[in-house]
Amino acid sequence: MSNRIRIIPLGGLGEVGKNMTVFEMGDDAIIVDTGIMFPASDMFGIDYIIPDFRYLRERKGLKIHGVLYTHGHEDHTGAASHVADALKGVPFYATPLTAALLEVKLREAGLLSETPIKVFRAGDTIQAGPFRVESFHVCHSIPDCVGFAINTPFGLIVHSGDYKFDMNPIDGKKPDYARLAEYSRRGVLLLMADSTNAESPGWTPSESVVQNGFDTIFRQAVDSRIIVATFASHISRIQQVANLAARYNRRLAIAGHSMNENVKTARNMDLLDIDESMLIDLHKINSIPPHELVIMATGSQGEPSAVLGRLATGQHRSLDVMDGDTIVLSAHTIPGNEELVSRTINRLLQRGANVLYDPIAPVHVSGHAKQDEMRLLINLTNPKFFLPIHGELRQLRAHRRLAIENGIPAERTFAVENGTVIEADKYGVRVGERIPGGYVFVDRSGVGDVGKAILRDRETLSRDGFVIVVVNIDSKSGKLIGDPEIYSRGFVYLRGTETLVHQIKDMVNDTLETQRNGRVKEKLQENISRALFNETKRRPMIFSIVNEH
Amino acid sequence: MSNRIRIIPLGGLGEVGKNMTVFEMGDDAIIVDTGIMFPASDMFGIDYIIPDFRYLRERKGLKIHGVLYTHGHEDHTGAASHVADALKGVPFYATPLTAALLEVKLREAGLLSETPIKVFRAGDTIQAGPFRVESFHVCHSIPDCVGFAINTPFGLIVHSGDYKFDMNPIDGKKPDYARLAEYSRRGVLLLMADSTNAESPGWTPSESVVQNGFDTIFRQAVDSRIIVATFASHISRIQQVANLAARYNRRLAIAGHSMNENVKTARNMDLLDIDESMLIDLHKINSIPPHELVIMATGSQGEPSAVLGRLATGQHRSLDVMDGDTIVLSAHTIPGNEELVSRTINRLLQRGANVLYDPIAPVHVSGHAKQDEMRLLINLTNPKFFLPIHGELRQLRAHRRLAIENGIPAERTFAVENGTVIEADKYGVRVGERIPGGYVFVDRSGVGDVGKAILRDRETLSRDGFVIVVVNIDSKSGKLIGDPEIYSRGFVYLRGTETLVHQIKDMVNDTLETQRNGRVKEKLQENISRALFNETKRRPMIFSIVNEH
Repeated sequence: MSNRIRIIPLGGLGEVGKNMTVFEMGDDAIIVDTGIMFPASDMFGIDYIIPDFRYLRERKGLKIHGVLYTHGHEDHTGAASHVADALKGVPFYATPLTAALLEVKLREAGLLSETPIKVFRAGDTIQAGPFRVESFHVCHSIPDCVGFAINTPFGLIVHSGDYKFDMNPIDGKKPDYARLAEYSRRGVLLLMADSTNAESPGWTPSESVVQNGFDTIFRQAVDSRIIVATFASHISRIQQVANLAARYNRRLAIAGHSMNENVKTARNMDLLDIDESMLIDLHKINSIPPHELVIMATGSQGEPSAVLGRLATGQHRSLDVMDGDTIVLSAHTIPGNEELVSRTINRLLQRGANVLYDPIAPVHVSGHAKQDEMRLLINLTNPKFFLPIHGELRQLRAHRRLAIENGIPAERTFAVENGTVIEADKYGVRVGERIPGGYVFVDRSGVGDVGKAILRDRETLSRDGFVIVVVNIDSKSGKLIGDPEIYSRGFVYLRGTETLVHQIKDMVNDTLETQRNGRVKEKLQENISRALFNETKRRPMIFSIVNEH
Repeated sequence: MSNRIRIIPLGGLGEVGKNMTVFEMGDDAIIVDTGIMFPASDMFGIDYIIPDFRYLRERKGLKIHGVLYTHGHEDHTGAASHVADALKGVPFYATPLTAALLEVKLREAGLLSETPIKVFRAGDTIQAGPFRVESFHVCHSIPDCVGFAINTPFGLIVHSGDYKFDMNPIDGKKPDYARLAEYSRRGVLLLMADSTNAESPGWTPSESVVQNGFDTIFRQAVDSRIIVATFASHISRIQQVANLAARYNRRLAIAGHSMNENVKTARNMDLLDIDESMLIDLHKINSIPPHELVIMATGSQGEPSAVLGRLATGQHRSLDVMDGDTIVLSAHTIPGNEELVSRTINRLLQRGANVLYDPIAPVHVSGHAKQDEMRLLINLTNPKFFLPIHGELRQLRAHRRLAIENGIPAERTFAVENGTVIEADKYGVRVGERIPGGYVFVDRSGVGDVGKAILRDRETLSRDGFVIVVVNIDSKSGKLIGDPEIYSRGFVYLRGTETLVHQIKDMVNDTLETQRNGRVKEKLQENISRALFNETKRRPMIFSIVNEH
C-alpha cells in the first residue's frame, strides 16, 4: 500500500452536477460516480456537459480498478458510456437498480459487452485492486442508494453520496446509522459530504409527506385525468403514483422514452411493483374515461422537447392537455431552470389545466439533507478532516462553515473546486496541486466538438446576428462593379438601407484605392463594422466577400 | 360621466414587470404606471421590454388626462420617457420621491420641459379630467408609495400598487388601514391587488428585520470593507446602510451611475438623510482604511455590466475585490436571474470575499405582501369583485384562489392576462374584448427595431451558428469554377472539410444541371442544409452566394 492517498475531484465541486471523483493510492485508482451536468443558459446549443477526465489518460501508469456508483441519477451516472468508452474494460460496481440503469445506457452506446457490471448490495464490501471499500445504505429520492467508506492506512474516508436522513422512507429502508457510528469508532480520517442544501436550515421532510400530498390530489381530481411529471429516474415517485393509481382505480400510462425504459428495467428487477394489468399504452388512453387514468411523464424541468414541455406548447404527437386536467410537477427545479419551469406552468394554465407544484401543493420534497441532517452526519462519523462535495462554491462554503461551527478546526476543512487535489498521509490531509477540472461539452454532433471559441461566436450571434456584404470588383481596373449586396440575419431591421449601400459603396472604393497590400477584405470588414456600430450601436458579426471579375 | 368603465391592462398581468393599466370612462382615460420588464434569457440582445401601448394611439377620440404613478421602481416607471414621447404633454402625477425619479428619466430623454409633473402626497385626491382618484399610503421597499381608489358611479375601484403590511416600517409611516376600512364602508366595486407573493404562505417580515441583520454585519466586519449591492432605486436600503455607516464611523461611497443619480435626487429632496461629510468619492476610497469604508453598489441581479458583476470578473475601472471584503447582496432575485446571481456570488467567493445573501444572512425581505396580508387587504376593503394584478399567470391564479377561499364568489374573480379588457357598469364587472397586449423590445439601437423574426434568427444562430458557401460559376458554360469556399461561425469544428468541399462541389454541379429555372441559390441552400444535417445532426443557418463570372 502506498504511503499517500490522493483524492481528485473531476466534477461536482463548484457546480451542481457531473459528480466524479478519483481516489489514488500510488498507481492504483478507483473512481466514484461519472455524472453529467445540464448546460447553463448561456452555453448555447449544448445538450449536456461531462467531466473533463483527460487526467485519467494522461496520468502515466495509472491502473484503474473500477468505477463505483452511489446511485442511479443522471448527475452521477450520465457520463457512464463516455467513461466506459475511454477506459475499455474497467468494471462498474453498482447496487441492483443502479446497475440496471447503467445497463440501459451501456446497451444504447453499444458498450455493454465490454464493460463488466458487478452488482453489490448496500452493506457489501468491494475489493477493487488494493481498495477495500465498504458500502452503506443512505436515503435519497431513488431506491438503492449508498455511500462509501474507503479503508486507508490513515483511517476511513467516508463519501456520503447524495443523502438525507429520512425517518420514514417509502421503501421502509432507513439510513444505516449503526454503520456510520461504527465508522466513527474505527476512526474517520475524512468525511466527504453532499452540500446541495447547505444553505437551508432545518431538516428535509420525509418522502412520505409527498404520499399524503398525492393522496389529496387523487381524492380531489374526481373527474379529471392526472398527469404527473418527474425525473425519468425517480423510481420511488413512480412507485408512489402507481400505488395511488391502484387504490383509486386508475390505469397508468408512461410518457417519455427514458422513463419508459427505466420503468421496464426497474420492473424486470422487481424494484418497481406495478401490475401489468394496470399499465396502459399511451396510444390507447383515449379508450378510457379521464377519471380512470393517470399519466407519468418526463419534462419536470420545463425542457421544451420533453413530454411536459410539448404538452405546454401543444406539440406532443399523441397527447393534448384537456380542459380540467390535473397536472402535477413533482420534482425539484434544478438551479438555472426556474424560467423554463415557470413558463411551462403558465402555458399549461393557459391551456386550461389545474397545475400543482411546490409550494402551492406538497408534491415534492428534496432528496438532500438540510443543515440539521448535515450536523448529524458530522456528529455520527466524527471525522478528523472535512471536504464538502456536490455543490457550487457558495454551498461548499456554507457547508464548510457549518462543519467549523460543529467543532472541526477551520484548517482541517476544505472548500475547493474541481481539479484541486486533496492529499492524505500519516501527517493528515491537505490541499495539493491543481490539475485540469473543466467542462467537456456534448451536443448532437459529438463530444468536445464545441469549444469556448464557438460558444463565444454563438453568443455574439445571439446578441447581434450577422451581416454579409458581397462586392464585385473588376479585376483589371480594380473598381467596384454595381452595388454591394447586403444580407443580414438576427441583426436589427436595416432601415435606410439605401444610405447604407451608398456608404458601403464609397467605403469599398476608398478601401480599394488606399488598400494596395491585398488586405481588402479585412479592411472592409473593419470599416463596415465601424459604420454599422455608429448607425445602430450594435456589433454584428461581419463577413465581406470580394469577388473579382 | 359614462355609464361604463373599461379597465385595460397593458402590462403586469401574466408577467413580472412592465406594469401599466388604462382606465376609461367613455372617451376619457387615465393611466396607472408605465413600467419596464427585464428580458427572459432567450430574448437575445434585448436590453428591456416596454408595454405595447399602441392601443392609446389607435383608440379613436381617446383623451388621456394623466399618468398616475404608484411608486418609483423601474417596473412601474421605467417606460415613462417612451410614454411621455408618445403622449406629448400629458401630465404625470406622482408623490415627491417618485416625481424626482421621473424627473431624472425625463431630463435624460430631453422630455422634461414638455411633460408637466404634478406632485401630490399620499392621502391627496387627484382630479384628472372626470376621474376623481384618491391616493392612500402603502408600505413597500421604497418610500412614498401609494395605492389608488378611483371613484366611479358603481363604487370604488381600489388599486393596491405594490404593497406589504409592514408593522414597523423604517420611516415610521404605517399602511393607511383607516382609509382602506373607510373605502369598505363607502363600497368597493373592484379590488385590483398585487399578486407577486401569492404562492407564499404567511406574512412578509418587516423591513426593520433587515436593520438587525445589517447591524450584525457591521459589528462583525471589524477590519474589512463592506460592499452592499441593491437596486439603484432602493432608497430605504441606502438610508439604512448610511445610518449604520454613521453609527460605525465609516465613510460611504456610491458605485454605479443610476444609484449616484438617485442618491443625488433623493438627498436634494430631503428624502435621503446623509451628511455630506460622510460621503466619499469612489476614486478617493484608497485614501482611507478598509474598516472605515462602506460602498453601496448596483448589480444585485448579477448583471455583468453593473458594478457587482464587474467586481466579480475583475473588470471594474476603479474598484477591485480585496481579500476579506464583506460583500452583501441585499435584494430579491428577480425570477430568471437566479443563474446570474449565483454565478456572481461564486465568483466573488473565488476572489476572496466573504459574501452574504439571503438565506444565509437576514439581509433582505420582500417588499410584497404574502398570503396572510393578501387576506387582510381583501377583508379590509371587502370588494364585490376581485382582479389580481402584478404576476405571472401562476401567481394570478393563486391569488384568485385565495380570494375565493376568502369568500368572494368565483364568478366575481378574474385571473386574466394583458390585453383582456375588464368592463364595469351598474350590472357589475365582467371580462370584455381582447386588445393587443404584447411586448415591445428595446435595445441599444432603438425601440421596436427587433421583432420576433429577428429573435428567432438569433435563437437559431445561438444554437447552431451559420455556414456561408461561396461558389463561382462561369456565366457562359454555367459550370463551377474552382472549389467552393466554405466559412462558418458558431457551428461545430468542420472536421473532414475536404470531403464536405467535394460533396458541395458535386452538389453544385448537380444543381446547376438540374436547376434551370434560376432558383440555383435556394436549391443549393436546401441541399447544403440537408448534407450538413446528415453529417452533424445540426441545422446551422446557410447562406450560399453564387457569383457568375
